[in-house]
Amino acid sequence: MAPVSEIESSRANFNSTLHSFNKDEITISEYIFLRIYQLGIKSIFGVPGDFNLSLLEHLYDIPDLNWIGCCNELNASYAADAYSKTTNKMSVLLTTYGVGELSAINGIAGSYSEYSPLLHIVGTSRYALKNSDLNIHHLVTNSNTLLKPDHFIYEKIAENFSCVQESITDDALEACVKVDNVIRDVWMKSRPGYLFLPCDLTEMKVPMKYLYTDLDLTYSPTVPQSRIDEVVSKILDKLYSSSNPCVIADYFLKKFRLEDKFEQLINKLDGKINIYDTFLGKGLIHEDMSRFVGTYNGKLGDSYVTKSIESSDLILHIGNFDNEVNNGFFTFDLLKERKIELNPDYISICGELYTDLNLQDVFPVLLSKLQTFKVPTAKVIEKDLCVTKKNDTVYPLIEQDLFNSLQSNLKPNDILIVDTCSFIFSISDLKLKGAKFINQMLWGAIGYALPATLGASLALRDFNMDGRVITVEGDGSAQMSLQELASFVRYKINPILFILNNDGYTIERVIKGPNRSYNDISCDWQWCQMMKVFGDVDETYSKSHRVTSAKQLETMMSDTVYQHENKFQLVELILPKFDVPDRLLRMIHGN
Amino acid sequence: MAPVSEIESSRANFNSTLHSFNKDEITISEYIFLRIYQLGIKSIFGVPGDFNLSLLEHLYDIPDLNWIGCCNELNASYAADAYSKTTNKMSVLLTTYGVGELSAINGIAGSYSEYSPLLHIVGTSRYALKNSDLNIHHLVTNSNTLLKPDHFIYEKIAENFSCVQESITDDALEACVKVDNVIRDVWMKSRPGYLFLPCDLTEMKVPMKYLYTDLDLTYSPTVPQSRIDEVVSKILDKLYSSSNPCVIADYFLKKFRLEDKFEQLINKLDGKINIYDTFLGKGLIHEDMSRFVGTYNGKLGDSYVTKSIESSDLILHIGNFDNEVNNGFFTFDLLKERKIELNPDYISICGELYTDLNLQDVFPVLLSKLQTFKVPTAKVIEKDLCVTKKNDTVYPLIEQDLFNSLQSNLKPNDILIVDTCSFIFSISDLKLKGAKFINQMLWGAIGYALPATLGASLALRDFNMDGRVITVEGDGSAQMSLQELASFVRYKINPILFILNNDGYTIERVIKGPNRSYNDISCDWQWCQMMKVFGDVDETYSKSHRVTSAKQLETMMSDTVYQHENKFQLVELILPKFDVPDRLLRMIHGN
Repeated sequence: MAPVSEIESSRANFNSTLHSFNKDEITISEYIFLRIYQLGIKSIFGVPGDFNLSLLEHLYDIPDLNWIGCCNELNASYAADAYSKTTNKMSVLLTTYGVGELSAINGIAGSYSEYSPLLHIVGTSRYALKNSDLNIHHLVTNSNTLLKPDHFIYEKIAENFSCVQESITDDALEACVKVDNVIRDVWMKSRPGYLFLPCDLTEMKVPMKYLYTDLDLTYSPTVPQSRIDEVVSKILDKLYSSSNPCVIADYFLKKFRLEDKFEQLINKLDGKINIYDTFLGKGLIHEDMSRFVGTYNGKLGDSYVTKSIESSDLILHIGNFDNEVNNGFFTFDLLKERKIELNPDYISICGELYTDLNLQDVFPVLLSKLQTFKVPTAKVIEKDLCVTKKNDTVYPLIEQDLFNSLQSNLKPNDILIVDTCSFIFSISDLKLKGAKFINQMLWGAIGYALPATLGASLALRDFNMDGRVITVEGDGSAQMSLQELASFVRYKINPILFILNNDGYTIERVIKGPNRSYNDISCDWQWCQMMKVFGDVDETYSKSHRVTSAKQLETMMSDTVYQHENKFQLVELILPKFDVPDRLLRMIHGN
Repeated sequence: MAPVSEIESSRANFNSTLHSFNKDEITISEYIFLRIYQLGIKSIFGVPGDFNLSLLEHLYDIPDLNWIGCCNELNASYAADAYSKTTNKMSVLLTTYGVGELSAINGIAGSYSEYSPLLHIVGTSRYALKNSDLNIHHLVTNSNTLLKPDHFIYEKIAENFSCVQESITDDALEACVKVDNVIRDVWMKSRPGYLFLPCDLTEMKVPMKYLYTDLDLTYSPTVPQSRIDEVVSKILDKLYSSSNPCVIADYFLKKFRLEDKFEQLINKLDGKINIYDTFLGKGLIHEDMSRFVGTYNGKLGDSYVTKSIESSDLILHIGNFDNEVNNGFFTFDLLKERKIELNPDYISICGELYTDLNLQDVFPVLLSKLQTFKVPTAKVIEKDLCVTKKNDTVYPLIEQDLFNSLQSNLKPNDILIVDTCSFIFSISDLKLKGAKFINQMLWGAIGYALPATLGASLALRDFNMDGRVITVEGDGSAQMSLQELASFVRYKINPILFILNNDGYTIERVIKGPNRSYNDISCDWQWCQMMKVFGDVDETYSKSHRVTSAKQLETMMSDTVYQHENKFQLVELILPKFDVPDRLLRMIHGN
């Protein structure tokens, strides 16, 4: 991700900040923020509330750590999720007791389902009050007014959506351990974790000395090396003795930060075996690689991809994540006895399950032990290259035009965010060519993409990453989290946001009730005026475009959008109500 | 609430709709909607999603039942809460599996804490899939990829925030019982309840005959009459033998629909004893009543109110709801041995606790047995009438001007909604004069008022109630749920919405960090242009006003706002950043 010089400069900044404190003890609040800053993170997303203000005060002690005040907590959680997906770093969300943390919970559940490392800090009710029977605001009342309210009720709920939860108490030393523990677990398990800080403990003094040592975030196997070697041997034996093997690159390679190692693997295997990715694994392989066949999508995918992979005699599925969005809605058809799976929770070798070791244990060893010359050369697959469909009509503009335009304009390092909208069903056909694809398709909460655009844009800025954020979102989705556009102006980000103006919930119209009122949204949103009401009256920070034809889209993309890289570009695409990709129709109607 | 003729006409409509089905069996979906319609409800709030579309289809079988499609689920839950608070009826929220229900959960927790009867219907994953190990979208993945996901995970979470939860299975008869059971519990306990309907059971046939009988929603005591009589006697003995008694009218009188009976009580006691209300009980008593003293707010209230009530020798506290918002932040100082409490969970008589009977058991009997002539005449309290403070300066406009304007313009039957913002701290001083005050101050999630305005306005329309909805909300709050303004146009409602434009989180500025960035919001919202981008380009359905002086406010209120009753009026008030009511400062700084 960030180049070494970048990391070194960030380390120097951290040390100088640490030095500036010049004391033996700091507050637990400072401790938390310094640990976060130590990881290179510069943006903290959230919403203030009376239970987190004292904590927030300490954020200003660290000049390089920025408060990103979002318009509401759900939006903030989406922004934080995308910050993490963009950088592969941890992201941080800060909310207030009850009302704040619960407002964010749908986003956290999404981050948990999709393995985003996200630290959720909640400012809670006073430690001194935790055992009282007093009913205070933001604390849910009990089933009977005579019963004590439960000050830990939200912490119990958080257990459903996080891999670790710690509540700070008045034990100062233990508090540091808890902070470190949450951060380490969030990182190692690549899922959200909670840190609950009572609002009367924000000034508690803790020793500073721990901060002089970085948190150890390196992965260490828990099984002996001999066990790993044994399993790797079995895998290699299967691979060497196969005749037509292939590799599937999947999601958990990203989430457990094994992309570089995976690149080494495919370099070692180049020209020898066929390589596929999955919907959620998309982006792990550059599409122009010679033996890259395509995205395996089961019965919903291109038939030459599906046929070729299903006729391989050994499938090495690395980082597999088995869920309907990723397995062509349960239409993968790979024989168990031909399949090797490397998963963060287990290894499976042709039907034999190993739960004592996992992807992170096995994959690096597999990579180092692999002897290329022993790997058989798999059958070359004739790609059935789909010709880009051109839209020859002048009107109306259709989604295919956007697809074509993205395909021509997307650049390496760009961040492409697509909401759970009709357009996402065409992404399997898109060549990313080094761009990164961010979505929330498994969790599938519409409205994700707009705040995610904020999070991704700030991530690029914080880590000095090249590229540009390009987002595609339906109007029905965009309305859900609309107000966050105000933050685009506030934080002066410059993404391109395509709003598909197709009069409502188009995916749902295809599923049921094509003309029912429940699939309508308020009819006449003025998307191109939106940035004005959010404060950019003179288009200083943004430019809005209303596009009604393919030609106009082409001109706008080449002439305008890429010429104004320092402004946010809002592009409203006027599309027919029932225009959707063929793949979506295939999925719903099964033809 | 609704006049008898109204109820009769509603009943006739229901019977005619029922007749139109003309069959023995209907779908469970129709059964649910008919039971709702039978209660007189006409609006169902929510957001569609793939797991509730088949259910939603059946909503159109009942012509008088309207789908109110909100911009997101949290907003929909706030709207439903206010629909219920406005009418004292049940309200209905409909969401989709996982993403939808969790997005609404902060609102539901608020309704639970504040005792709003709200039916939350969730369209869930397929019944046939409930025991499968398949990972589907909207279903949170498990802690280990080898573990089955839990299809009932959200139902367990709902238990924290609802008084009843029922999941429909493929047992058709039991399904009807479950529907009836949830509705009855929601009503009787006056809190949210959940009905989970798997998306593959929406067409399940159930007998229609149950619908020919209304649900029995009348309250019946579970203790023998003799026990109630015994406790009532004790209360009356205390009352009759006191010398300076008083009554406090409190929140649960509203929530358990005892307002009419309470009015009978104060008529019986008129001229004899002093009457108070509380912050959450506000509106139960017309302020002009001769023996009404004021709102008891402990040390935060007017001292003559606090002194007089605390020197009463018997305090009959009816419908008491003990929480910090309602008890002057724990500054009530009433001696236990002088206090009688009638609460939905218990009765307490001068320190003796009775948990086998409650407010609903005791209050009607107390009313009927009370003999006015035996009640001592309490000391008349000299009211220390606060003179309305006038703002003599031309600029700037301050919150006090809004207070004065509301005090002159508020009419009986108006619905005054105030968000948890600085202005709400002046409400204790406002005379409602028959208007209804709606807030969410105990739960305290900012952003409530804007969607609540939609819910309250539709409630007035559905039940042909007089009055007008008038809402006051800070800009920091309004941005949280901003997009729901689009529904104001879509559903053509005509409230008055005052936006306090004071550049951010003013309450928080008073608590901490007056000039910190965390208390800022995106700086330059163009409130008066807002309705244009939400589709009302030519101000057909709305009118926006920017007000900067008291004079201008006065003119606008008399000339404009009340002259355009068929249009929504958005009034942006330009206020100083640190202008707050004295009461708020007293609460925070304790002086």
